[in-house]
Amino acid sequence: MINLASIFHSGLIPDFVVGSPLLATEPSSESTSLVLAGVLLSLVFIYLASKLGGELSKLVDLPPVLGELVAGVVVGVSALHLLVFPETGATASDSVVMTILQQVGGLTPEAVGSVFSTQSEVISVLAELGVIVLLFEIGLESDLRELQKVGSRAAIVAVVGVVAPFIAGTAGLMLIFGMPTIPAVFAGAALTATSIGITSKVLSELGQLKSTEGQIIVGAAVIDDVLGIIVLAVVASLAKTGDVDIVNLVYLIISATAFLLGSIFLGKFFNKSFVAIAEKLQTRGKLVIPALIFALSMAFLANAIHLEAILGAFAAGLVLDETDKRKELDQQIIPIADILVPIFFVSVGARVDLSVLNPASADNREGLVIAAFLVVVAIIGKIITGWAIWGKEKINRLAIGIGMIPRGEVGLVFAGIGAASGVLDKPLQAAIIIMVILTTFVAPPLLRFAFQQEGEVVEEVAENSDLALEVKN
Amino acid sequence: MINLASIFHSGLIPDFVVGSPLLATEPSSESTSLVLAGVLLSLVFIYLASKLGGELSKLVDLPPVLGELVAGVVVGVSALHLLVFPETGATASDSVVMTILQQVGGLTPEAVGSVFSTQSEVISVLAELGVIVLLFEIGLESDLRELQKVGSRAAIVAVVGVVAPFIAGTAGLMLIFGMPTIPAVFAGAALTATSIGITSKVLSELGQLKSTEGQIIVGAAVIDDVLGIIVLAVVASLAKTGDVDIVNLVYLIISATAFLLGSIFLGKFFNKSFVAIAEKLQTRGKLVIPALIFALSMAFLANAIHLEAILGAFAAGLVLDETDKRKELDQQIIPIADILVPIFFVSVGARVDLSVLNPASADNREGLVIAAFLVVVAIIGKIITGWAIWGKEKINRLAIGIGMIPRGEVGLVFAGIGAASGVLDKPLQAAIIIMVILTTFVAPPLLRFAFQQEGEVVEEVAENSDLALEVKN
Repeated sequence: MINLASIFHSGLIPDFVVGSPLLATEPSSESTSLVLAGVLLSLVFIYLASKLGGELSKLVDLPPVLGELVAGVVVGVSALHLLVFPETGATASDSVVMTILQQVGGLTPEAVGSVFSTQSEVISVLAELGVIVLLFEIGLESDLRELQKVGSRAAIVAVVGVVAPFIAGTAGLMLIFGMPTIPAVFAGAALTATSIGITSKVLSELGQLKSTEGQIIVGAAVIDDVLGIIVLAVVASLAKTGDVDIVNLVYLIISATAFLLGSIFLGKFFNKSFVAIAEKLQTRGKLVIPALIFALSMAFLANAIHLEAILGAFAAGLVLDETDKRKELDQQIIPIADILVPIFFVSVGARVDLSVLNPASADNREGLVIAAFLVVVAIIGKIITGWAIWGKEKINRLAIGIGMIPRGEVGLVFAGIGAASGVLDKPLQAAIIIMVILTTFVAPPLLRFAFQQEGEVVEEVAENSDLALEVKN
Repeated sequence: MINLASIFHSGLIPDFVVGSPLLATEPSSESTSLVLAGVLLSLVFIYLASKLGGELSKLVDLPPVLGELVAGVVVGVSALHLLVFPETGATASDSVVMTILQQVGGLTPEAVGSVFSTQSEVISVLAELGVIVLLFEIGLESDLRELQKVGSRAAIVAVVGVVAPFIAGTAGLMLIFGMPTIPAVFAGAALTATSIGITSKVLSELGQLKSTEGQIIVGAAVIDDVLGIIVLAVVASLAKTGDVDIVNLVYLIISATAFLLGSIFLGKFFNKSFVAIAEKLQTRGKLVIPALIFALSMAFLANAIHLEAILGAFAAGLVLDETDKRKELDQQIIPIADILVPIFFVSVGARVDLSVLNPASADNREGLVIAAFLVVVAIIGKIITGWAIWGKEKINRLAIGIGMIPRGEVGLVFAGIGAASGVLDKPLQAAIIIMVILTTFVAPPLLRFAFQQEGEVVEEVAENSDLALEVKN
């Protein structure tokens, strides 16, 4: 593995360029300026990676988001160390950005720790804002009526996609591998997740977001996210006390249901007042700022009642989708999404530590066997969901099943919490991470294949909005 | 003064809603989620304030940016405490956002300090990105050839605008107020700054960015920024050692000159390859991402050689302005600027502490007298710059002088560094802050007045780009 940090440490950059301690008299403004420098450099690496990865993917006819993920792995903790995060165990000395700042920016060894953790936090929050804006955009492009039409089918897909891999995974780990109940339940729970971000982005890139299959997948992924939070609550309290906190569970179920139904209900009334307000405004950003106020408030609300912020943003998008400002708003959200969303995908890739795949370590070998089992369960457990839909309707059942496969960042959250609480030993932890990586990376090309099988790949809608803008100018 | 924090502290929100400690098993992911919640809530407050302030300003026919600044003061440390920063001496318990998070988000008293400082840092960096994007946009809308045409006049305006207030201020403080040399020199130095962000935003709102006066003001503000950094370097080393670091000074002058000339030179070659690259790309964000990579790299470079990041972004805008992708790019930068720039202006307002205006405190009374003197010098010292331009050319000299008046965030940096290094006593510090506030707030309406005098206020270009987008849809 290449580590650029060591190249910079070796002193190839002359001391002449090393910063002066001029502004050191004001520590907080000095450190803000260094944090800003770190963020600027990280963003340059992220954007370079996302464009290189996305374009290469596109050249070989794969969804660009897959390239962004892979590019993230390349610049991340697994290889170049251009973008590393403290949560993955990296320290400031692993970070090429910090090394460059020490060489050219006058960053002192004493300040490097706090500047590293703050700039990483800023990038993490920007990535979170990216997935919030992505889900807002997906909500805007989804149709609430269409989504309600597919509601029952989406619910079946979600429930089967949670129950099947959970039971198969937990039972398999206990019976085949003789694992104790609690870690087995935890690993089974990690199998239930679906990454709504990755799935919806791929659908959008394939121009399938508005197809029946697309709407079922998005609807199911949303429901799956809610179920995932409930499952996480259950296993987390199980892991901590060996017991399930019923009050908390009931609270979560009620608040999640109330939030989703409340948003739909709210939508019917709110969208008229939104248009009325937006039409009265006269200063710059008169449409996009009120829309963001609404989306961010909903995201905060969802976060505050212990759901995920992205669910709130998605609901906000659905509500505003019903207005006649939709097209105009969508047009303006596109460039904002274009600059924020890549931060999310590259970061997800950068956090993946490929060293768990190295069979030279004994821990990994055990992990690899368990991983193989988990991957099979993870894929089959979700693919069957397509056939869980009743009726003889002509529908691309394979595509629906594949659409539910990627675990993405949600799976990483499970692995992270499990590791921190001490429930998962090293091999099991590695196995879960491998399962997350493989399901995430295998889904986009499979999904394209599934849609192509039926000759359903239409022109890429997302790309066209860019082109449309160009033609107009 | 109203402090919403106390209302929330009083327990009006039931304990029922208080968060569960569910996810507390994973401290770093938990704290990221709380930081995210804090950022979401802060952004909601910022956007609400910016829209309310901007629209009210517009209604009474003032530049919207003035309303955003005032709204910032209202939500900031001076009044509502919805947005406070640790640098201004605020603690987590002053922050309404933190109080709300403790009530509804499960933020523990132990974690509140670090969550507060991290979320403030995130908002500060977002504000910095805002002014970077603003200057990039201003650069895109400026014309390098036009700017070169006004170059010598802009240089005169900048030099006179630095020398005149510096000498008048320093001499006045020493002779009239009997102040020692070093604090007098520091206060004089604080008078030299010009806020390029505020000035250029007002010009853009008045549709005067491309007029000869507008180009002279922008050019002079850029040169003033460079001069300001050199002045700051001189007084900071003077304040610390009583002596000036000549090596550092020479380094700063050379690097600043090389950077600005280098960018112009680079522009002639780079813009063709930029267009060639952008035209080859096929994935989303194919224009805006390469442009941002360039702008952020230039910003980082400027920051790394101890200039300001915004100068790099401005230079990047100038370079890309020469390409035939300019219009399309400008169109896509607008929504990005719309969501980032208000964060900057509201933050500048929020950091202003109006309590220095309260004459009940003895320190303030002495400060108010010195402030009155500084304000007069600050305004006259810049207004005369218009008449420093040689020749009998018919030109709005008053407008040019007024355009240089606002000290904005640059002045606050001087005050902050002075306070931290102990050079400035309380009254002088308060006086500088008052000078910064008044010059910042008085400039936008005066500038509009100066242009109106000559019947020069054209239709607001910035607004029209919004409208144009609307008409197209």
